[in-house]
Amino acid sequence: MKLTILGCHSATPRTNTNPTSQVLEIKNHTFLIDCGEGTQVELRRNKVKFVRIKHIFISHLHGDHCFGLVGLISTFKLLTREADLHVYAPKGLKEVITLQMKLSDSWTNYKLIFHELTSDSSELIFEDDKVEVYTIPLDHRIYTNGFLFKEKEGERKLDMNAVLNTGVDVAYYRKLKQGFDVEDNNGNLVKNESVTKPPNKPKSYAFCSDTAYNEAMLPIIKDVDVLYHESTFLEKNEKLAAPTKHSTAKQAASIAKQAKAKTLILGHYSTRYDDLNLFKEEASEIFENVKLAKDGITFEF
Amino acid sequence: MKLTILGCHSATPRTNTNPTSQVLEIKNHTFLIDCGEGTQVELRRNKVKFVRIKHIFISHLHGDHCFGLVGLISTFKLLTREADLHVYAPKGLKEVITLQMKLSDSWTNYKLIFHELTSDSSELIFEDDKVEVYTIPLDHRIYTNGFLFKEKEGERKLDMNAVLNTGVDVAYYRKLKQGFDVEDNNGNLVKNESVTKPPNKPKSYAFCSDTAYNEAMLPIIKDVDVLYHESTFLEKNEKLAAPTKHSTAKQAASIAKQAKAKTLILGHYSTRYDDLNLFKEEASEIFENVKLAKDGITFEF
Repeated sequence: MKLTILGCHSATPRTNTNPTSQVLEIKNHTFLIDCGEGTQVELRRNKVKFVRIKHIFISHLHGDHCFGLVGLISTFKLLTREADLHVYAPKGLKEVITLQMKLSDSWTNYKLIFHELTSDSSELIFEDDKVEVYTIPLDHRIYTNGFLFKEKEGERKLDMNAVLNTGVDVAYYRKLKQGFDVEDNNGNLVKNESVTKPPNKPKSYAFCSDTAYNEAMLPIIKDVDVLYHESTFLEKNEKLAAPTKHSTAKQAASIAKQAKAKTLILGHYSTRYDDLNLFKEEASEIFENVKLAKDGITFEF
Repeated sequence: MKLTILGCHSATPRTNTNPTSQVLEIKNHTFLIDCGEGTQVELRRNKVKFVRIKHIFISHLHGDHCFGLVGLISTFKLLTREADLHVYAPKGLKEVITLQMKLSDSWTNYKLIFHELTSDSSELIFEDDKVEVYTIPLDHRIYTNGFLFKEKEGERKLDMNAVLNTGVDVAYYRKLKQGFDVEDNNGNLVKNESVTKPPNKPKSYAFCSDTAYNEAMLPIIKDVDVLYHESTFLEKNEKLAAPTKHSTAKQAASIAKQAKAKTLILGHYSTRYDDLNLFKEEASEIFENVKLAKDGITFEF
């Protein structure tokens, strides 16, 4: 699992900071999460191949999370994209994008499929044989979802020494990986556990921005490997966080602790703070493994 | 008159090039012309004060000319702007922006006034005591206008030596600047021409992008001081220019020559060309005073 932060600042794009956008590479997928203005340029800067992006997840319709989407869709068209593009976003974005395409008479030459989100409960919105994506309802000023990306449990791994000792035919390897017992060439039963090892533990990533402190997400993100949780403010500015429905670094850490997350990544910083280390210091008092998002950096898990 | 090129490339924002946007400073106005994605960042980079922008002119609704507008409007709001903002744009943009504000529940706290353009004839769309702005109907794939910015003739200038010699009272100076004859302290007529000089010649700037070769604009831009004319292609790619309704450098130069413009600025280059000097060379064969637009440079006239 590889997470590239294209932008992790709140409110507006600036000369050296970008609004929210991330790329999550997981099980051969390249998922784009949020798409603030300038995202297409940051994708280029970070050498993410446009053609690999087939699924875009938009948390909510504030500009710093979605104003770059229409431009990206338009650029995909100009680059003669052919692959389908799926957009998971709150209801309304389809209408905006469609209106803009109509007014510019610039319809995509690829299939653009909107999955409009309206539910206030967590729902499975994407699934294939290796990955599931669930919404995480958040508490913000407008309808907002985070997203939980979960690897499915993979196949068991062959213990090749043990397998070769049994003389099981190679034709049965697939069955073994799938967890079945098989027979060797003499018709003797070979128990699966004796020749395979458990699969790698599936990993998970939760993206939670923007939101007020919100314990309702805890059951959904329980035991997540990596939690990205916004921390727009420091605790000293908690009075700004509450009315704007944002969180402080301390609150983010509290959520991470209660969820028993393994790693917490902070981001969506207000531009009022020059020293982002203060966010890490504040969160680290409550939760041990805190990392700071920064535009252009990559985390590997 | 001062023109700052924020972006002068066609189609898509890239790591080192920006789509169309310009700032024209003329007679104490700061006019923003077109607003591709990333314009607000380029405004910051070029240290253009946001609060000085009160009028935005949008040529057409292709993304590389307008996708940055909603973000700029939104940023103005976040910066607690109070001044009115006037947007002159083809009909439709108001609907898009209004829908986006509605979906994000983020209405401006300043007055946002759209002037929706629909006419196929040149019309006066802005006027005060010092400046006039006219549309220049262009020939593009969708409804498109260029804009002609014209200084009005200013007041006559006092020839102070001559004025002081006559002993005309200072109370009459204003009348003299306005072109009137006045009386001196002894009741003698002082002819205006004897104590004043003509005003500075008013200047004019025509912005013409995007357009096919289009002689219909000639009467409107006749004798313009500075013509910005798109040259998306070189003549060798004229077969690409015609169907996309763009121009070549040669065609832009031909328009400049026929209009008797004093200066031609080229821009809106296709990204297929690495050497932009080829545009200047091609245009210079037809028109003498050719300049190349470049992101971040300023022309003073």
